[in-house]
Amino acid sequence: MNKYRIKIAYDGSEYCGWQVQPNGRSIQSEIENVLKTILQEPIKISGSGRTDQGVHANGQVAHFETKKEFDLSKVCFAMNRMLPQDIQIRTLEKTDTNFHSRYSAKGKIYHYHFWTEPHIHPINARNRYHLSPNFDVKLFESALREFIGEKDYTTFSNIRVSHLGPIDAVREIWRLDMVAQEGGFRLEIEGNGFLYKMVRNIVGVLLEVGYQKRSIDSIQELFKAKDRRVIGVPAPAHALFLHEVLY
Amino acid sequence: MNKYRIKIAYDGSEYCGWQVQPNGRSIQSEIENVLKTILQEPIKISGSGRTDQGVHANGQVAHFETKKEFDLSKVCFAMNRMLPQDIQIRTLEKTDTNFHSRYSAKGKIYHYHFWTEPHIHPINARNRYHLSPNFDVKLFESALREFIGEKDYTTFSNIRVSHLGPIDAVREIWRLDMVAQEGGFRLEIEGNGFLYKMVRNIVGVLLEVGYQKRSIDSIQELFKAKDRRVIGVPAPAHALFLHEVLY
Repeated sequence: MNKYRIKIAYDGSEYCGWQVQPNGRSIQSEIENVLKTILQEPIKISGSGRTDQGVHANGQVAHFETKKEFDLSKVCFAMNRMLPQDIQIRTLEKTDTNFHSRYSAKGKIYHYHFWTEPHIHPINARNRYHLSPNFDVKLFESALREFIGEKDYTTFSNIRVSHLGPIDAVREIWRLDMVAQEGGFRLEIEGNGFLYKMVRNIVGVLLEVGYQKRSIDSIQELFKAKDRRVIGVPAPAHALFLHEVLY
Repeated sequence: MNKYRIKIAYDGSEYCGWQVQPNGRSIQSEIENVLKTILQEPIKISGSGRTDQGVHANGQVAHFETKKEFDLSKVCFAMNRMLPQDIQIRTLEKTDTNFHSRYSAKGKIYHYHFWTEPHIHPINARNRYHLSPNFDVKLFESALREFIGEKDYTTFSNIRVSHLGPIDAVREIWRLDMVAQEGGFRLEIEGNGFLYKMVRNIVGVLLEVGYQKRSIDSIQELFKAKDRRVIGVPAPAHALFLHEVLY
């Protein structure tokens, strides 16, 4: 078998998420359909992780196997011609057979985009979270350090019941940075792994702090509670990008 | 009668254009429907000009008349609550009864957005024109001055036959500037008026120059020809924004 690795950028607005779902278009199924047409055999691709409905990616990674050998640049070009405009294959490479998009990953970087100016154009509103003038950026920034390091993220994950028993919710966040950009800033979050809805739940709590609905001191209590119900709603999906998968 | 003036931002991707069409959603009809619901009477809005299918706006202007008096900020808020996310009312003001969104306009500013980096994210591809590496930005820039001043733009307009006879195609362009922005640059075009598809036809010819398919010297010949058939296709709509209407 030959193993291939793809890096994918997508606008998740019109999809039910990365993973194949019984009802609704998924990024994964769009790519699998195109590969099936090009390679003339059923292909299953395996992603580094799911992204939720409405979440975007700059650099999602997936792998697939086939006995076939082919011209990488030609197949990549054909894939992009056939895929919808909101999904783009950035790179297609042959990879070591030991490589696994999920299990070989050492970490991930997510970006969450904020707009701070009074007026937001509808085009930017598609993928930015619009902060109102009473949002306190300084408080938001001061709260970031509460999430740095190795912690049990049970409270910050909408973990679904697993038939395999309790899930290990300890994850390490290495970096949480605010970077200025057009109209506002983005939050860059880098860590060794992320649980289901973990980034959006962290951002949700940071929004509570910025809107002065929660004190920074209360955040460590949230970790100790190990209960999803002690926090509010996750931040919306439309401003979140899976930026990079680290190997 | 009271006269009201609105400034509108929109993502034109999903619309057949500004103007009401027998088949297809238009920006104008979406706004008229919302006003009808709020003011409980049929309202006709009159725009500064049409924008084509797929063209966006930062500051389209329109006016409408009604006998009703109302709280401007409440109605503006209600309109934005009811309008689809890709149309936004930026301002709603009471205006002089002599004001006319089209006939009072002194000029317009359009922006055309270019992406010059190798990789473009699908989200940016929605409203940027992706230039390939063989595009010569210096040639493009040198050609801009050919369009400055008062000229007959017959060649650069897809004028439809008018039952009123020949159309006056003389227009004056005051300013054509390249402004650097994320991933590339935008072209800002300011002038006293623009014919049907005139901006896209100008950009189309500038693209021919940048891709070395046309010499800069040939541009004045195009003006002299006064024939739309001597130029190529207009630049695509998706990267064009009606930025501002000047009064």
